[in-house]
Amino acid sequence: MSRRFEFWFDLGSPAAYLAWKRLPGFAQKTGASVTHKPMLLGGVFKATGNASPVTIPAKGKWLLGDLDRTARKDGVPLAYGPGFPISTLALMRAAIGLQLRKPDRFAPYVDAMFDAMFGAPRDLRDEKTIAEVLSAAGFAPAEILALTADPEVKQALIRNTEEAVARGVFGAPTFFVGGEMFWGQDRMDAVAEALAAR
Amino acid sequence: MSRRFEFWFDLGSPAAYLAWKRLPGFAQKTGASVTHKPMLLGGVFKATGNASPVTIPAKGKWLLGDLDRTARKDGVPLAYGPGFPISTLALMRAAIGLQLRKPDRFAPYVDAMFDAMFGAPRDLRDEKTIAEVLSAAGFAPAEILALTADPEVKQALIRNTEEAVARGVFGAPTFFVGGEMFWGQDRMDAVAEALAAR
Repeated sequence: MSRRFEFWFDLGSPAAYLAWKRLPGFAQKTGASVTHKPMLLGGVFKATGNASPVTIPAKGKWLLGDLDRTARKDGVPLAYGPGFPISTLALMRAAIGLQLRKPDRFAPYVDAMFDAMFGAPRDLRDEKTIAEVLSAAGFAPAEILALTADPEVKQALIRNTEEAVARGVFGAPTFFVGGEMFWGQDRMDAVAEALAAR
Repeated sequence: MSRRFEFWFDLGSPAAYLAWKRLPGFAQKTGASVTHKPMLLGGVFKATGNASPVTIPAKGKWLLGDLDRTARKDGVPLAYGPGFPISTLALMRAAIGLQLRKPDRFAPYVDAMFDAMFGAPRDLRDEKTIAEVLSAAGFAPAEILALTADPEVKQALIRNTEEAVARGVFGAPTFFVGGEMFWGQDRMDAVAEALAAR
């Protein structure tokens, strides 16, 4: 039986980006398969009373430095686009839409968007820029736009976000191994231990 | 030249307790000396707009489980007394008072109080219980009580707390290696790396 873990994420979270970059190596190391779970972090914050750590200036300042340290260690570029943190509603609708309708295009989309968000940041508040990023990654912007307007897709993102909250998620990235939850890219060692113990 | 790091803490923080328990081994491993910095975490929260993570129920629930996991791994008992989290104003005044007036009694006091807070928890909201804990650890409760009423001691705790905030502290435990700050018992590896790099 293959071991599985869930990866709950939002494209707006730099910590989720760092975790995303580690996932291939992590899967190889643990021999476990990932189930990707897109959620709307803003919705999770609203439902739980939590907020982005950058809303506390001292915490935000330290956290960004801490993420920088991790990124340097991981050899991953990390930078921030204008307006960070931005609304990711349309971006996350597209993610879950692709997961539902074109599952083989899900990971390439998330790759392209995370890179445009934190790798070589673009202004992803701007629809024209999003279209450019999509085109460059081989997507048809009009098709993605249509996905984001699809009521079933919208509903799927709401459902995932509600499931996240119901299961105790309050931030991103969040991992589950069975019923055990782990919050943060800095808990991937504990995720690996939980997988090894199964 | 000996390497030094600062350990900022409040007796009310279970994460600081776990870090405190690790300090002897950490000092041995890194060859570095610690400077203990008592602060009033409630004052830091007020000044920074931060709050105890337990104020967000989902986050508090996860965090307590995460601390449990760390405590089991470290082989350290961890439990919570009635009313957690409690006010630590008098306890922290006594800590800094001993640091100023009887420095050789500072670590035994912090040991006894952390143990009574999180090791084998007592009701440290109750002055009689505090006196019992102090007596059992070889302290004269009246002498400690006098320290907590000493204006210079009160001022020293305010000064430390203000220094913490001015230097970017927003939670506990916090470590400094020179000007570099690290928040959390889960960043002690990064503290060790920063010490090794000096």
